[in-house]
Amino acid sequence: MPAQQTISSFLYDCLAKEGITEIFGVPGDYNFALLDELESYSGIRFVDNRNELNAGYAADGYAHVAGLSAMITTFGVGELSASNAVAGAYSEHIPLIHIVGSPAFSMQEAGTKAHHTLMNGDYSVFLRMHQEITCYAVKITPENAAEEIPKAIASAVRERKPVYLDIPQDTATTRIETPGIQQELSYMSDELVVQETAQLMKEAIDQAEKAVLLVDIFTSRYHMENIILQLAEHLNIPTAQMMQGKSGFNEQHPLYIGIYAGAFGSQQVRDYVENADLIITAGLLESDFNMAKFTADLPAEKRIDIQPQEISIQNKARYNTVVEEVIDALTLMECRTFEQIGYLPSFYDFPSENYSERLLAETYYPIIQKLLQPKDIVVVETGTFSYGLPHVRLPENTLFISQGSWQSIGYALPAAFGAELAAPGRRVLLFMGDGSFQLTAQELSAMAEQNLKPVIFFLNNKGYTVERYLNTENTHARYNDIPHWDYMQLVKSFYPAAETVSVSTSTEFEEAVARIGQNDTLHFIEMNVDDQMDAPIHLKRLREFAEGSSS
Amino acid sequence: MPAQQTISSFLYDCLAKEGITEIFGVPGDYNFALLDELESYSGIRFVDNRNELNAGYAADGYAHVAGLSAMITTFGVGELSASNAVAGAYSEHIPLIHIVGSPAFSMQEAGTKAHHTLMNGDYSVFLRMHQEITCYAVKITPENAAEEIPKAIASAVRERKPVYLDIPQDTATTRIETPGIQQELSYMSDELVVQETAQLMKEAIDQAEKAVLLVDIFTSRYHMENIILQLAEHLNIPTAQMMQGKSGFNEQHPLYIGIYAGAFGSQQVRDYVENADLIITAGLLESDFNMAKFTADLPAEKRIDIQPQEISIQNKARYNTVVEEVIDALTLMECRTFEQIGYLPSFYDFPSENYSERLLAETYYPIIQKLLQPKDIVVVETGTFSYGLPHVRLPENTLFISQGSWQSIGYALPAAFGAELAAPGRRVLLFMGDGSFQLTAQELSAMAEQNLKPVIFFLNNKGYTVERYLNTENTHARYNDIPHWDYMQLVKSFYPAAETVSVSTSTEFEEAVARIGQNDTLHFIEMNVDDQMDAPIHLKRLREFAEGSSS
Repeated sequence: MPAQQTISSFLYDCLAKEGITEIFGVPGDYNFALLDELESYSGIRFVDNRNELNAGYAADGYAHVAGLSAMITTFGVGELSASNAVAGAYSEHIPLIHIVGSPAFSMQEAGTKAHHTLMNGDYSVFLRMHQEITCYAVKITPENAAEEIPKAIASAVRERKPVYLDIPQDTATTRIETPGIQQELSYMSDELVVQETAQLMKEAIDQAEKAVLLVDIFTSRYHMENIILQLAEHLNIPTAQMMQGKSGFNEQHPLYIGIYAGAFGSQQVRDYVENADLIITAGLLESDFNMAKFTADLPAEKRIDIQPQEISIQNKARYNTVVEEVIDALTLMECRTFEQIGYLPSFYDFPSENYSERLLAETYYPIIQKLLQPKDIVVVETGTFSYGLPHVRLPENTLFISQGSWQSIGYALPAAFGAELAAPGRRVLLFMGDGSFQLTAQELSAMAEQNLKPVIFFLNNKGYTVERYLNTENTHARYNDIPHWDYMQLVKSFYPAAETVSVSTSTEFEEAVARIGQNDTLHFIEMNVDDQMDAPIHLKRLREFAEGSSS
Repeated sequence: MPAQQTISSFLYDCLAKEGITEIFGVPGDYNFALLDELESYSGIRFVDNRNELNAGYAADGYAHVAGLSAMITTFGVGELSASNAVAGAYSEHIPLIHIVGSPAFSMQEAGTKAHHTLMNGDYSVFLRMHQEITCYAVKITPENAAEEIPKAIASAVRERKPVYLDIPQDTATTRIETPGIQQELSYMSDELVVQETAQLMKEAIDQAEKAVLLVDIFTSRYHMENIILQLAEHLNIPTAQMMQGKSGFNEQHPLYIGIYAGAFGSQQVRDYVENADLIITAGLLESDFNMAKFTADLPAEKRIDIQPQEISIQNKARYNTVVEEVIDALTLMECRTFEQIGYLPSFYDFPSENYSERLLAETYYPIIQKLLQPKDIVVVETGTFSYGLPHVRLPENTLFISQGSWQSIGYALPAAFGAELAAPGRRVLLFMGDGSFQLTAQELSAMAEQNLKPVIFFLNNKGYTVERYLNTENTHARYNDIPHWDYMQLVKSFYPAAETVSVSTSTEFEEAVARIGQNDTLHFIEMNVDDQMDAPIHLKRLREFAEGSSS
């Protein structure tokens, strides 16, 4: 039965229905109407960020936990500041609803030279820009709101991509007739296609001598974790993960063997994967990071690729189908099973043999691996940490958040903020370096305001070490230096109750780690390393590889 | 004579020829080739910012002083973070060369799923986005570099707009044959058009009883200050300025009468301007801010509009012509002259009659007006300051920098950084509020790194006061609150040598002002106001007007 309500309250109803309880953003006069309505709306609250880029990152982190997120910015200035985060959500397959409060429709029609415009009368320019980095972008009117708002949200959820809603300030408060709760569309596959796909998969499996399942990013992005686990257990197949696949498969499961990272990761896992005659991939993304600069050797003719809406079999056949149904069908078939080989120990499973008081990657990563607990949320900034943490074995139900594709430095701190808001009661561990911290540091103060209590591991190596690694031609370029900050003082000025500690040795680090959780507040552990060029094994190998390629 | 050189060194030669000595930006692996060449290039140095948005703002501030600026970012993540600043440069008519280091051309051709891409193989998406917010956007190749680089820079200079150069990392180091220094094109007008325009102007002037010259933004943006001064003196015409026109006309000149801001500014200036039967505008922009929510009453039939490439006369004729030539021709004609009326005292010329110990706009603006010195650079953040400072009378040769059109909060701090780098030896005064400071605060540390010493007036009114003013419906919305920061401690952690003082009374403020310059360092004066809703007269009137309109 249609009901009369404002367009903004209809929007919030649609978001609430998807489980959203927080919307991120920054106020601005064109979004007052949206925010005023939200301030009195029951069930969703507005969480203000220090700037729009941070709001976008926070929304991204939130969606990792909640499955969907939303952000409100203001026309022009606000939305463009967030555009890096929106494009990042596109690259990383994160459903994020970007809601922009724009000038009144009459002003737009008249081409008024209003503030926050390009002063050329063009009110569609930012929408056109967003069309490039979202899967759906639309200007809402009283006529299209009832149809377009649910459609946009459904697109985001289905395609795991950001969408864009431009809502003029007068449109936000306009009352319209809105439909009742809609029936969900359910996807049905052609039963013949399902059976044929399952049959072909079974044949390939039955012919294999040595097989491996390789879990990657789209497994978690498209919520395929359970069905992939079902497949693994049905075949009893040794299972590895890609770097970007972290938390798609339980790394404590008896079938789990380790991380596959081409020439830069574990040699034992590499040998196993590359010697397999059948490689079943789940949600594979062949990105440069994931494929370890394309040293990963995964020939398509050996592979069955299970993607969210598509299954390809050894370069011979490709089906658009529903993965759950195919795997359910396959589970009913009696297939060849494989021999469990167990976990293949990797870099950081044991304390370093060269354990020393020097705070080096080989000493601190095993300490980090040991401190992780089930259900932790681990947020990892792009930098040396993003080449080390994927090789750390995670406890059960750990959520791993990092940008392997988009790799925007500054992302992780606001993303940790968003993730913790979405997961009250879960411990959030944030790993970031000094270089990236400087981009978005102010979001620490929002953590204080929201009473969040993450544990922050802050690697101080005085500059962009990852860039020193990547630039083999000019390793000690001045531009990779950064200004000196008094980090301990800074953290206190943003978050007075924070527990801060600055460590320079392995013993100090272990002591600091032991104190985590003793006080109910944010922990900030500054790790001062004496070797600016210390890095995890993966990154060292990557550099050797790059030197080999360029010489 | 053609010479062999790398494309990046050719680019730097072209920029150096335009007087650029600093390029702003943030490093990233795709721009290493550009930065490595720059690090060894003589005559231009790279200045690193804390993030790309700040780099864009800094470049904008630099261009206000130097006439042109450049910024280097990295593909995707970096360039999009800067997009708000680039669009701002478009809106504000600032020539800014945005140089993006992108992946190697071969990767682009192959559609490689490289980091910082959308993972869809599309390597032109960010260029297309920049086409919307620049006057020229191009991907540089070895084949087009010699032609396109000078063309793009010339477009920026001519159109006073940003341009965009996408330079793949391998293209940057490719050697090409480049042309020698080009002859400048000079613009020539049709002499008949010039004479006809001048003659029609003279007729309109001779018929006028009461006339006013109104100087606005494009006067300074297009370097018309001298020719407009020549016009003013030839006619002896009383001259007012628009809010966005600040520093287009010397406010100490005997012909200067004050700022015209419709219903929100000086009543005496308003009466004079609106009673004139001839209004000559110079570089007028009819924006909502400048036109005081369109309460400004400037009928086109009364106006001669002098724009950079166009003169319109009383709705009767419009000519595309070179302004200098027309005014030179007019200067040779004997025209009616007008009666000098002298400066019309405004809000802040004298100490407040209600002078009190309370730190109120009416007490502190007169103190600010008194402390300004010739040649100061005054950078004003969007917020209550941007409604008050335009009404402060400037000494000779003061440069006034503020975003009246784009109004992106967070702009002013990095812009002051850029302006001071471009103007060694000139005093920079930065006026900003706490709300906007939180967006881009980290750029203070770049000021320390570069040994810059601005004077910062920091208005602490605990939130977005300007937004409280603009939202007449919901003045005390929670979303206009901001987190508490310990600003004194924060400033010290970014800039240990800063001289910081926190004042809460008029006497303390006067004492702090008296100490400016005693120590050779950055001064940070926190102005703690007790009335969160205190504001300059202009903003109070704007709110009254908005309340009237909405009721």
